[in-house]
Amino acid sequence: MSYSMHTHTCGELRESNIGEEVTLTGWVWHRRDHGGLIFVDLRDRAGVTQLEFDPEVCDEATFHEAETIRSEWPIMVSGTVRERPEGQNNDKLATGAIEVYVTKIVVLNTSKTPPFQIEDHVDTAEDVRLRYRYLDLRRPKMTSNLKLRSDFTFALREAFHGSDFMEVETPSLFKSTPEGARDFLVPSRMQPGHFYALPQSPQLLKELLMVGGVERYYQVAKCFRDEDLRKDRQPEFTQVDVEMSFVTQDDVMGALEHVLAEAFGKMGVKLELPLRRIEYWDAMDTYGTDKPDTRYGMELHDVTPIFSASKFKLFATAAATEGQFVKAINAKGAGKWPRARIDRLADVAAEFGAKGLAYIAFREDGSVTSPIVKFFSDEEMAALRAEMDVEPGDLVMFAVESRLHADEILGGMRNHMANELELPREGHDFLWVVNFPLFHWDEDRKCLDSEHQPFTQPNEDQIDLLDTDPLAIGSHTYDFVMDGYEAGGGGMRIHNAKLQEKVLEKLGFTPERAQAQFGFLMNALEFGAPPMGGFALGLDRVCMLLAGADNIREVMAFPKTASGSDLMSAAPSEVTGAQLKEVSLRLL
Amino acid sequence: MSYSMHTHTCGELRESNIGEEVTLTGWVWHRRDHGGLIFVDLRDRAGVTQLEFDPEVCDEATFHEAETIRSEWPIMVSGTVRERPEGQNNDKLATGAIEVYVTKIVVLNTSKTPPFQIEDHVDTAEDVRLRYRYLDLRRPKMTSNLKLRSDFTFALREAFHGSDFMEVETPSLFKSTPEGARDFLVPSRMQPGHFYALPQSPQLLKELLMVGGVERYYQVAKCFRDEDLRKDRQPEFTQVDVEMSFVTQDDVMGALEHVLAEAFGKMGVKLELPLRRIEYWDAMDTYGTDKPDTRYGMELHDVTPIFSASKFKLFATAAATEGQFVKAINAKGAGKWPRARIDRLADVAAEFGAKGLAYIAFREDGSVTSPIVKFFSDEEMAALRAEMDVEPGDLVMFAVESRLHADEILGGMRNHMANELELPREGHDFLWVVNFPLFHWDEDRKCLDSEHQPFTQPNEDQIDLLDTDPLAIGSHTYDFVMDGYEAGGGGMRIHNAKLQEKVLEKLGFTPERAQAQFGFLMNALEFGAPPMGGFALGLDRVCMLLAGADNIREVMAFPKTASGSDLMSAAPSEVTGAQLKEVSLRLL
Repeated sequence: MSYSMHTHTCGELRESNIGEEVTLTGWVWHRRDHGGLIFVDLRDRAGVTQLEFDPEVCDEATFHEAETIRSEWPIMVSGTVRERPEGQNNDKLATGAIEVYVTKIVVLNTSKTPPFQIEDHVDTAEDVRLRYRYLDLRRPKMTSNLKLRSDFTFALREAFHGSDFMEVETPSLFKSTPEGARDFLVPSRMQPGHFYALPQSPQLLKELLMVGGVERYYQVAKCFRDEDLRKDRQPEFTQVDVEMSFVTQDDVMGALEHVLAEAFGKMGVKLELPLRRIEYWDAMDTYGTDKPDTRYGMELHDVTPIFSASKFKLFATAAATEGQFVKAINAKGAGKWPRARIDRLADVAAEFGAKGLAYIAFREDGSVTSPIVKFFSDEEMAALRAEMDVEPGDLVMFAVESRLHADEILGGMRNHMANELELPREGHDFLWVVNFPLFHWDEDRKCLDSEHQPFTQPNEDQIDLLDTDPLAIGSHTYDFVMDGYEAGGGGMRIHNAKLQEKVLEKLGFTPERAQAQFGFLMNALEFGAPPMGGFALGLDRVCMLLAGADNIREVMAFPKTASGSDLMSAAPSEVTGAQLKEVSLRLL
Repeated sequence: MSYSMHTHTCGELRESNIGEEVTLTGWVWHRRDHGGLIFVDLRDRAGVTQLEFDPEVCDEATFHEAETIRSEWPIMVSGTVRERPEGQNNDKLATGAIEVYVTKIVVLNTSKTPPFQIEDHVDTAEDVRLRYRYLDLRRPKMTSNLKLRSDFTFALREAFHGSDFMEVETPSLFKSTPEGARDFLVPSRMQPGHFYALPQSPQLLKELLMVGGVERYYQVAKCFRDEDLRKDRQPEFTQVDVEMSFVTQDDVMGALEHVLAEAFGKMGVKLELPLRRIEYWDAMDTYGTDKPDTRYGMELHDVTPIFSASKFKLFATAAATEGQFVKAINAKGAGKWPRARIDRLADVAAEFGAKGLAYIAFREDGSVTSPIVKFFSDEEMAALRAEMDVEPGDLVMFAVESRLHADEILGGMRNHMANELELPREGHDFLWVVNFPLFHWDEDRKCLDSEHQPFTQPNEDQIDLLDTDPLAIGSHTYDFVMDGYEAGGGGMRIHNAKLQEKVLEKLGFTPERAQAQFGFLMNALEFGAPPMGGFALGLDRVCMLLAGADNIREVMAFPKTASGSDLMSAAPSEVTGAQLKEVSLRLL
């Protein structure tokens, strides 16, 4: 049973159907009148089929009806599938070998002329697309993006369910915890002056589920952050949320790899298991980022030793200073750029925190363009050429900084240069980055901050460093990196109330504040919390990468603009005074 | 690969495992020291296994460790599976034929003494259960309820996916539409004085998806209503939301039956297809409700004709009045009740809108107790006995009212009496109630109100009654009734902008207000909206019925109290002045 007005979709008729009587439904995409005949491309979510109205085949009324139809009218037609005339096959179309000779048409509705053409490659301003999203979604690419997302989500669910994970729904109206990102607040009517918050993630709730014995939990969870929006941020986003108990870190990573390989596999993307694991500091030192795209090289090199006796003071001083480094990358091909273009790279480097950008451009004619090379000895140049594998046309760029800053600057430049040079990035790239530091130093607030989150389990053999050298402590953490994006992240959780208290204290929480915000978690940990760990996959971002899109809005049905607006419904909007009064609020 | 600290769950060891070395993890449920041995029931989400610590088998350190463990400590043990000694099998336990002879124990955490016992049948106050929900969830019944919900939800997803439905996520931050139930508001920080609303349902969004060509949509959608809470209401609830386009009503109902039968089937509940369909007015007239439980009789009878010439004025007047009815039900067995108990039924009937309750109790000794029977002739009594199939011990109750009110009063009494008499209700009962009126009269607001919702498609052949007799118009609607509960509801939608405008006008919307609230929908309908219809299943309620629970809180991980509180985290809570200022609000 098809449970539809049609017998077939517009995407499925083939030569094998020739001679069949069929009924199709869909929208009039293109209509061409030619030689007394009317041709219509009929489009539904599955594809396109060519219809032909021939006054010698259909009756007069049908032909007249066909003359009235316009773009984007939904219609239902019946007719006979037949071979297209010699030479009129359309190889680009799955149904391109056939057409339907229509004998009956029912116009299901009319349509105003759409404000833009329903085509994949029409350059429509995004605000117009969003205002008329219901038309934008008819574009075949958007339809296929939504289908890809639906299919991938279901593949994940199948894999989790098959591995004995339970889907548990956690509440969306929860407690406000003003740490971290900003909460969206929801005023309570029944408890005036009190507010729920929409969850930034179900983190605390899933830990409580583990305390509650669920053992294997997953949820495709809507999360909310009231942050200023960037290209790949939305106020609400979706994460595939996971938690396991009675497990080690390897158990969790193993289970996740198994599930991810199964789900990606169903999308035709093969994961080689076990996935590579790169230690956090190795990723930073080699790629300058904790989410490296390893489909191309341009790795970071520590060239400090080469310049330990350099006449170039900047390099020599760094080499002589504990914790300072001279690091370099080689952007092959950029050495051919005009000097002005190379000089402009200093502005790019500044965005990543560099105070300037030392470089050497190795010209194809054997010459060298560089503001600093004059200070270098022949031996230094030779050593540098060897270390950086220099060829004509190369551009070597330097960062002179502390380890983390040098890494971050060159990591940013590596990414920028890869885009500028349009380095080929074939297929998909998956890896784990593991063992993040437990803390980093927050320079603004002058205190320790969690690298992942306050509930992360420190490495057991380093816990005694909490009071002496907290920045040296590593943690049971693992980020899932796909194509140079942080596609997911996870870690083992603290399951000991005292240790949780201690970590919160190091993060600057007074005992009172820790109790007020996370008291319910610490209470729960005292009732036999098991070892546990989990993960969250950024579904929007992964779908974006799978779809080959460059923005998560392309894989969301109804995204919001950078100012958080839904242009279609004009949300957010003003509300009535009565609505505000009911929740005991007034506008400032 | 098990990806866990254990080799087996606590629910799976059988006689066939005897002799195997195993590792188990779980919580200490019960511990008994007996004859120098320590017995522990180890519990995880899958079941319970008996452990035995014997100082002659395990080493001293292990035995001493075992002596320290207390209830609800999570532990990991290794040992050998062996047959239980003669006569010590526990048939009530799936693992009751074996025990594990422990040789190694690892205490994973300690636990404070829980505030209540982790047992299914301990009578703990619900507020304590909710405050320590993470302990309450460890009770085997709660674990199995969560698992049932997870399994059923997945079964639904499989069925929808298998029938070519696409899962599409719709936004949770949407536009406030102050009609219907009260919205939860979410203030916007970026647009001061503007608010999102959490969706009461994705109704408008799914219609827009149909305009956008999705054709078959489903979503397990969190919905929000800021209403005063009753037993089976929560501020956030979950509906399985469905919409289809290019369909007739029979297509939608057929597809739903197919999906529901598949999903319920996986839970061991068979749906006989096609499901019975009862017209709205037939359901009202026969069962006094639009969500009848047909597992028992006690049907409503129209006895008006019997009393057309009665000396009992109340009945005779009704019989002589257009639109007034005398209706009756027979509660078999209640005729044995003492008069005082029967008289108290008038209070119950008053809850359903009755001004009093006329009755006749047919005593087992052949006598009759009734305040009204003295007015009846022998013929009237004989006709009544025949019509109502009266036997000794029966209680016949009357309602004298307009059709709808008489139905509602007796429907309420029918339900009440079934509970009082503990009528057996075996298995599950499924049916459709179809063809609801398009409107009903809202006596408070003195205007028409939608019986289902403002977007419901009227019966095509009655549209011309919109101006002349709107209350007579039926609609393309279908409620899915399970065990006397409205488990789901749906309908075909208006896909014509002009008709939508007209219906909103009949509902009292000025053109301005219609445009302000639903303008984006009506705009969308003008761009070739296809015929469409859909459905929403109340997931919480259906899971409650499947679990045999009497409250939806029993199938939710973290429900809220009647005042909307999460007792565990103390949400909602006060927020800081800074948080309020950011969203340009102050407290009244």
